[in-house]
Amino acid sequence: MIELGQGSLTIVAVIGAIAVAALAFAVVLRRQVLATDEGTPAMKEIAGAIQEGAKAYLTRQFRTLAIFAVIVFGLLFLLPAEPEIKLGRAIAFLFGAGFSAAIGYLGMSLAVKANVRVAAAATRPGGRSEGARIAFRTGGVVGMAVVGLGLLGAAGVVLVYRGEAPAVLEGFGFGAALLAMFMRVGGGIFTKAADVGADLVGKVEQGIPEDDPRNAATIADNVGDNVGDCAGMAADLFESYAVMLVASLILGKAAMGEQGLVLPLIITAIGALVAVLGVLTTRVRGEESGLRAIYRGFYVAAVVGVLLAALATFVYLPGTFADVPGISEALAGQPGDPRLIVSAAVLLGIVLAGVILWLTGYYTGTTSRPTLHVARTSRTGAATVVLSGIGVGLESAVFTAGIIAAAICGAFLLAGGSLSLALFLVALAGCGLLTTVGVIVAMDTFGPVSDNAQGIAEMSGDVDAAGAQVLTDLDAVGNTTKAITKGIAIATAVLAATALFGSYREAVDVAMGEIAEAGTQVAGGIVGAMVAYDITSPITLVGVILGGATVFLFSGLAIDAVTRAAGAIVFEVRRQFREMPGIMTGETRPEYGKVVDICTRDSLRELATPGLLAASAPIAVGFGLGVGPLAGFLAGAIGTGVLMAVFLANSGGAWDNAKKLVEDGLHGGKGSEAHAATVIGDTVGDPFKDTAGPAINPLIKVMNLVSVLIAPAVVQMSVPADTNHALRIGLALVAAAVALGAVLASRLRAVRAERDDERDDSRTAAGVL
Amino acid sequence: MIELGQGSLTIVAVIGAIAVAALAFAVVLRRQVLATDEGTPAMKEIAGAIQEGAKAYLTRQFRTLAIFAVIVFGLLFLLPAEPEIKLGRAIAFLFGAGFSAAIGYLGMSLAVKANVRVAAAATRPGGRSEGARIAFRTGGVVGMAVVGLGLLGAAGVVLVYRGEAPAVLEGFGFGAALLAMFMRVGGGIFTKAADVGADLVGKVEQGIPEDDPRNAATIADNVGDNVGDCAGMAADLFESYAVMLVASLILGKAAMGEQGLVLPLIITAIGALVAVLGVLTTRVRGEESGLRAIYRGFYVAAVVGVLLAALATFVYLPGTFADVPGISEALAGQPGDPRLIVSAAVLLGIVLAGVILWLTGYYTGTTSRPTLHVARTSRTGAATVVLSGIGVGLESAVFTAGIIAAAICGAFLLAGGSLSLALFLVALAGCGLLTTVGVIVAMDTFGPVSDNAQGIAEMSGDVDAAGAQVLTDLDAVGNTTKAITKGIAIATAVLAATALFGSYREAVDVAMGEIAEAGTQVAGGIVGAMVAYDITSPITLVGVILGGATVFLFSGLAIDAVTRAAGAIVFEVRRQFREMPGIMTGETRPEYGKVVDICTRDSLRELATPGLLAASAPIAVGFGLGVGPLAGFLAGAIGTGVLMAVFLANSGGAWDNAKKLVEDGLHGGKGSEAHAATVIGDTVGDPFKDTAGPAINPLIKVMNLVSVLIAPAVVQMSVPADTNHALRIGLALVAAAVALGAVLASRLRAVRAERDDERDDSRTAAGVL
Repeated sequence: MIELGQGSLTIVAVIGAIAVAALAFAVVLRRQVLATDEGTPAMKEIAGAIQEGAKAYLTRQFRTLAIFAVIVFGLLFLLPAEPEIKLGRAIAFLFGAGFSAAIGYLGMSLAVKANVRVAAAATRPGGRSEGARIAFRTGGVVGMAVVGLGLLGAAGVVLVYRGEAPAVLEGFGFGAALLAMFMRVGGGIFTKAADVGADLVGKVEQGIPEDDPRNAATIADNVGDNVGDCAGMAADLFESYAVMLVASLILGKAAMGEQGLVLPLIITAIGALVAVLGVLTTRVRGEESGLRAIYRGFYVAAVVGVLLAALATFVYLPGTFADVPGISEALAGQPGDPRLIVSAAVLLGIVLAGVILWLTGYYTGTTSRPTLHVARTSRTGAATVVLSGIGVGLESAVFTAGIIAAAICGAFLLAGGSLSLALFLVALAGCGLLTTVGVIVAMDTFGPVSDNAQGIAEMSGDVDAAGAQVLTDLDAVGNTTKAITKGIAIATAVLAATALFGSYREAVDVAMGEIAEAGTQVAGGIVGAMVAYDITSPITLVGVILGGATVFLFSGLAIDAVTRAAGAIVFEVRRQFREMPGIMTGETRPEYGKVVDICTRDSLRELATPGLLAASAPIAVGFGLGVGPLAGFLAGAIGTGVLMAVFLANSGGAWDNAKKLVEDGLHGGKGSEAHAATVIGDTVGDPFKDTAGPAINPLIKVMNLVSVLIAPAVVQMSVPADTNHALRIGLALVAAAVALGAVLASRLRAVRAERDDERDDSRTAAGVL
Repeated sequence: MIELGQGSLTIVAVIGAIAVAALAFAVVLRRQVLATDEGTPAMKEIAGAIQEGAKAYLTRQFRTLAIFAVIVFGLLFLLPAEPEIKLGRAIAFLFGAGFSAAIGYLGMSLAVKANVRVAAAATRPGGRSEGARIAFRTGGVVGMAVVGLGLLGAAGVVLVYRGEAPAVLEGFGFGAALLAMFMRVGGGIFTKAADVGADLVGKVEQGIPEDDPRNAATIADNVGDNVGDCAGMAADLFESYAVMLVASLILGKAAMGEQGLVLPLIITAIGALVAVLGVLTTRVRGEESGLRAIYRGFYVAAVVGVLLAALATFVYLPGTFADVPGISEALAGQPGDPRLIVSAAVLLGIVLAGVILWLTGYYTGTTSRPTLHVARTSRTGAATVVLSGIGVGLESAVFTAGIIAAAICGAFLLAGGSLSLALFLVALAGCGLLTTVGVIVAMDTFGPVSDNAQGIAEMSGDVDAAGAQVLTDLDAVGNTTKAITKGIAIATAVLAATALFGSYREAVDVAMGEIAEAGTQVAGGIVGAMVAYDITSPITLVGVILGGATVFLFSGLAIDAVTRAAGAIVFEVRRQFREMPGIMTGETRPEYGKVVDICTRDSLRELATPGLLAASAPIAVGFGLGVGPLAGFLAGAIGTGVLMAVFLANSGGAWDNAKKLVEDGLHGGKGSEAHAATVIGDTVGDPFKDTAGPAINPLIKVMNLVSVLIAPAVVQMSVPADTNHALRIGLALVAAAVALGAVLASRLRAVRAERDDERDDSRTAAGVL
C-alpha cells in the first residue's frame, strides 16, 4: 500500500470534518423547513396520501434494486484485481449504491413534507417569497446532503486506502451511478406514466382540469414528482458528484502524485462551503421572479467558489511542476505555473456551469424568445408546436454540447500537449463545475416541490386565485431550474467520461504490461486493431456507431415504457369512472392507491430493460470487439448522449413552459385550441424531459465505469497469442443476448399490453361503460 | 502518370460501353412510359401546372447553385496538389455537379409526365398493375440514368487519368455530393413547406380535404413531390453511387494496384446489367400488393447480381494475394484466396441491402406491427401518436445502424487484420450494395409519382372510387419504398464514409511525408495530439461531439426552415381565401402560381444555411483542431448521422402510413378524432422524413470529401515547427464565422417571419378576414 504523507492525511481529515459539517447544516435547514405551517386539513390529507405512495414506491424499488446490487457485488469479484482491492472495491460499490439510495430517499421524504408547506405559504400575504424560500431551502437540504455524503465517502476511502484509493473509488462511483440510473429510469417512468395517463383520461377524454381530485391518477402524478424528479434527480446528482470525484482522484494521482490526489478533495470541499452561502443568500426580493433570486444565489456561490479555489490552489501547490512531490516523469519538465493552470481549469468549470445555466434559461424560460416562439406556433395547431419544440431542443443541444466541447478544448490547451495533464485538468474543470452542485441540487428540488404544491392547492381547493398564481409562477420557475440541472448534470457526465478515458487507458496499459512481463506472446492481426485506439479504423467506427445506437435505444425504450405504463393507468382510471359513477359527481372518492400500485408495479418492471441494456452493451462490445472499439463505443455514447440528453430536456422544458404561457392567457388562454395544442406538446415532452433525457447522464457513467472495470479482463482474454477466443466471444454473445433479450421482453410486454387494450375496448363496446 | 495495362484499359472501355447501353435502355423505357394514355383534359391541365412549377423551380435552383459551384471550383485551386491533378479535379467536380443536376432534372421531367399517366391508368380496368407498371418504369428510367451516368463518369476519368484517376475522382464525387445536398435540402424544404402549409390552412383551418382544388397550395404540394422526393432523391442516389465508386477506386488502387482499381467498376457494371433485369421483372401479378412485386424484382436482381459478381471476380482475380500484379507490400503476404474474400465482401453488401429493405418495410409498412401500433395509439390522441412514432423511429434506427455496423465488422474480419484490405472490402461491400441501386432508384421514384397521381385524381375529380382506392394503395406502397431508399442511401453513406477514412489517412500521410522529406522540423506538444487519431484523447472526443452536433444542427435547421416557409404559405393561402371569396364556393380558381413562387423563393433562401454549415464545419474543425480531431468529427457525424437519418425517415414513414390506415377505416376512419391525431403525426413527420432525414446522407459525404480535400493543407499549416499558427487559426475562425453567421441569418429570418406573422394577425383581428 502506497502511504500518504501526514500533511495530506490531516487535510483529508479536515475535509471529512467539512463533510460532516455540511450534513449538520442540512439537518438545521431541514428543521427550518419543517417548522413552517402545514396548511389546512384538506391539504394535509392530500399530502399524507402523497407521502404514503412515495414511501411505498421507494421501499419496493429499493427491495428490487437490492437484488441487482447483490448480483453486481458478486460479479465484481470475478474481475481481475488484487484480492485486497477486489474486496475494497466491492464494499465501496455497496457504499456508493447505499449513499445514492439514501440521498434519494432523503430528498423524497423531505419534499413530500415541504410541498404542502409551500402550498400553505402561498395562501398567506408575502406568499411569493415565503413559498420560494421553503421550496429552495428544501432543495438546500438535499444539496448539502449530496455534497456532504459525496465528500465523506471520497475522504473516507482515501483515509482508509491511501494511495490505493483510486481503484477502490471506481467501485464507489460505479455503485452510485448504477443505483442512480435505476432510480432515474424507474422514477422517471413512474412520474410520467402517472402524468400522461392522468392527462389522457382526465383532460382528453373527460374534459376535467389537471390535478382535479376526481381523477384517480392525480395522487400518483404527485407521488411521481417526488420519486422521479426529486429522489431520482438527487441520486443522479450525487452520482455525478461521486463519479467526478473518482475520476479526479484517479487522474490526479497519476499526474501529480499525492497532491494531485488531495487537490480535487480541497476544491470540492470549497464547493460545500459556498453551497451554504448560495443557499443562505437565495431570497426573493419584492416582486422579482423566483428565477432571478436563484440565479443570484448561484452567481454569488460561483464567484466566491472561484476565488476560494484559486486561493487554496496557490497555498497548496508549488510554483513549478518540477517541485510537485511525486510528480509523474512525463510532467516533471512541464513548463508553466501549476497554480495558475489548475486555477484556470477550475475557473473553466465554474464558467461552464454559469453559461449552461444562462443558455438553458434562455431556451426554456417563459420570458425568452424560444419558448415564446413555441407558444406562438400553437396557433397553427399541435403539429407546429411539436416541430418548433423539436427545433428549439436540437438547437439548444448543439450550443450546449458546443460549449462543453469548448471547455474541454480549453483544458486541453492549458495542458500544452501533455495528455495526462489534459485529462486531469478536464477532471478539475469538472470539480469546478461541482463547486456549484449544492446550489444546483437546491434549484432542482425546487421543481418537484413547487409542482406538488400547485397540485395540492388545486386538489384541496383551499387556495385563492392570488395564491394559485403564486404557485403557477413558482412551478414555471421549477420547469426552468429542472432543465438547468439536467444541463449541468450532462456536462458533468461529459467531463467525467472524458477524464475516465485516462483511467481506462491506464487499466488497459497495466493489463498489457502484465502480459508482456509474464513473457506471453502477444497476438497480431485482428487483435492489433482490437487494442488500437485508432478512430479511422473501421472497427473503432463500428464502436462509435454502436455507442450512439445504445443511447438511441435506451431513449426509445424509456419513452415506450412510459407510453405503455400510461396505457395501464388509462384503463384503471377509466374503470373507476365506469364502475363508480359517484366519482364524476364528486360523491365518491376515487381509489387513488390502486393507481399508485399500478405505477409502482409497472415502473419496477419496466426499469429492468434499459438497465440491463446499459450494463451489458459495453460488455458485449468490449469482449466482442476489443478495448479499442470499446473506447470508440464510449466516445459515440458520449457524443450522441450529450446531444440527446440536452435535446430531450430542453424541448420538454420549452413545451411545458409554452403551455404555461398559453394558460396564462397568451394566444387564447386556457380552453382555447392553442391550449389544446400546447397540452399535446407538453405530453410529448413529458417522457422526453423527465424519463429518457435525464437518465442518459447516469447511463453514460455506468457504461464508462463498466468499461473501466472490464478492460483488464478484455485484454487478458484477447491479447495473448495462445488465448482461447471462444470464451471471450462466448461472453460477448451472452452479454448481447442479455441486452437483446431485455429488449425482446419489453416488446412482448408491449404486445400483451395491446391485447389487454383490445379487451378493454371490447368491454367498452359491449356497453359496460 | 502511372500507366494502366492494355487489358485493364479494354475492360474499362467495355464498362464505358455498358454505361452507354444502360443510358440507351433508359431512353427505351422512357418512350414506353410516354406512350401511355395521358388522361382526361382536367387531369392534363393539372399536370401541366405541376410541370410548369417544377421546371421553374429547378431552373431557378440551378441558377443559384451554379454560383456556388463556380465559387467552389475556384476554391479547389487553392488546395495543395500537383497542377495537373488540381485542374483535373476541378473539372471533374464540375462534371460531378453537372451529372447530379442532370439526373435530378431528368427525374423530375419524366415524373411530371408519368404522374398523370398513372392517374389515367387507375381509371381503367386492370388499373392496379398498369399503374404500378408505369410508376415503376418511370423509376426505371431514372435508375438506369443514375447507373449509366455514374459508371460513365468513373470509367471516363479512369480512361483519361489512368493511375492518377483516384485523386481526380475526389472532385467528381465532391461535385456530385455537394449538388445533391443542396438539391435535397432545397427540394425538401419546398415539398414540405407546401405540404405542411397546405395542410395547416386546408385541413386545420378550413376543414377541406387534402388535395382539394380550392386550396391554393395544392399545386405547390404536388410540384414539391417532384422537385424534392424525385429530383432531390435521384441526385442523392447518383451522388451515393459516385462517391462509393470513388472510394472504392481509391482504396482498390492503394490495396491491390491496377486490378483493385478496375474491380469496383466491374462489380458496378454488373449492377447496371441486373438493374435492367430488375426493372423488367417487376410486374404486379393479379391482386398482390405493389410492394410484393417490387420486392420480387429487387430479390431477383440481387441474387443474379451476387452470382455474376462472384463469377467475374473468379475470372478476373488470381488465386492468391501474392499473384495480384502491383499488390501493396503490406498485402503481398496476406493469406487466403482474394477471389473468395472479394466475393464474400460483395455478397455482404447485397445481403445488407436486402436486410435494410426488409427491416424498413417491417417498420413502416401498413401491414406490420409497428405502423399498426402507431395507428392504434391514435385512439388516445395526437401526443401518443407522436410518442409512439418516435419510439418506432428510434428502435428502427438502432437496428438499421446495428446491421450496417455488422456488415462493416464482417468486412473487417474478412481482411484478417489488414487495415488497407479492410477498407477496400468495406468499399466493395458498398459496391455490392450499389448493384441494387438501379432497382432502388426505380422504387423510390415510384413514391412521388404515385403520390402525385393521387393528387391529380383527387383534384380533377375524374377518378371513381375504385380508381381512387388503387391510387391510395400505390401511394402507401410509395411511402414504404421511399423509406427503404433512405435506408439504403444512408447505408451507402456509412460504408463510403468508412472507406474514405482510408483516403483521408493517405492524404495526411503523403503531406506528412513531404514535410519530413523537405527536412522541416516537426512540431511536438499540442500538434502531436492534433495529428493523432487517438479516440481516447480529449481533443478527439471534442471532434466526435462536434460531428454529432453538426448533424443535430443541420437537422434542426432543416426542420425549422420548413416550419418557417410553411408559415409564409399559410399567409398566402389565407390571403387568397380572404380576398377571393369565390374560391371557397368553387367559382374562382385560386392563384396556384403565387404559392409555387413563394415556395421557390423561400426554399432557395433557406437552403443556404444548412449548405454553408456542412461545407464550413469540417474546415473550422480541421484547421482549428487538427487532422486527428477532424477524423473524430467525421466519426461523430457518421455515428450520429446514420442514427438520426434512419430515425427521421422511419418515424416519418410510420406516421404517414398510420394515417393511411386510419383513413382506410381503422379506429374510426376519416374525420374521426383518431384521424385528426394521425394527421398531426403525419405533419410532424413531413419535415422529418422528406427534408432533414434524407439530407443527412449527402451531408455526411460532403463533410467527408471536404475533409479529404483539406487534409493536406491542414497538415502543411500545422505540423512544421516553424509554422505560423495564426493563419491556420484565422482560417478556422473564418469558417466558424461562416457557419455561425449562416445560422444567425436564419434566426434573423425567423424573427422577421414572426413579425410578418403578427402583422397578419392584426389584420385578421381587424376583421379583414
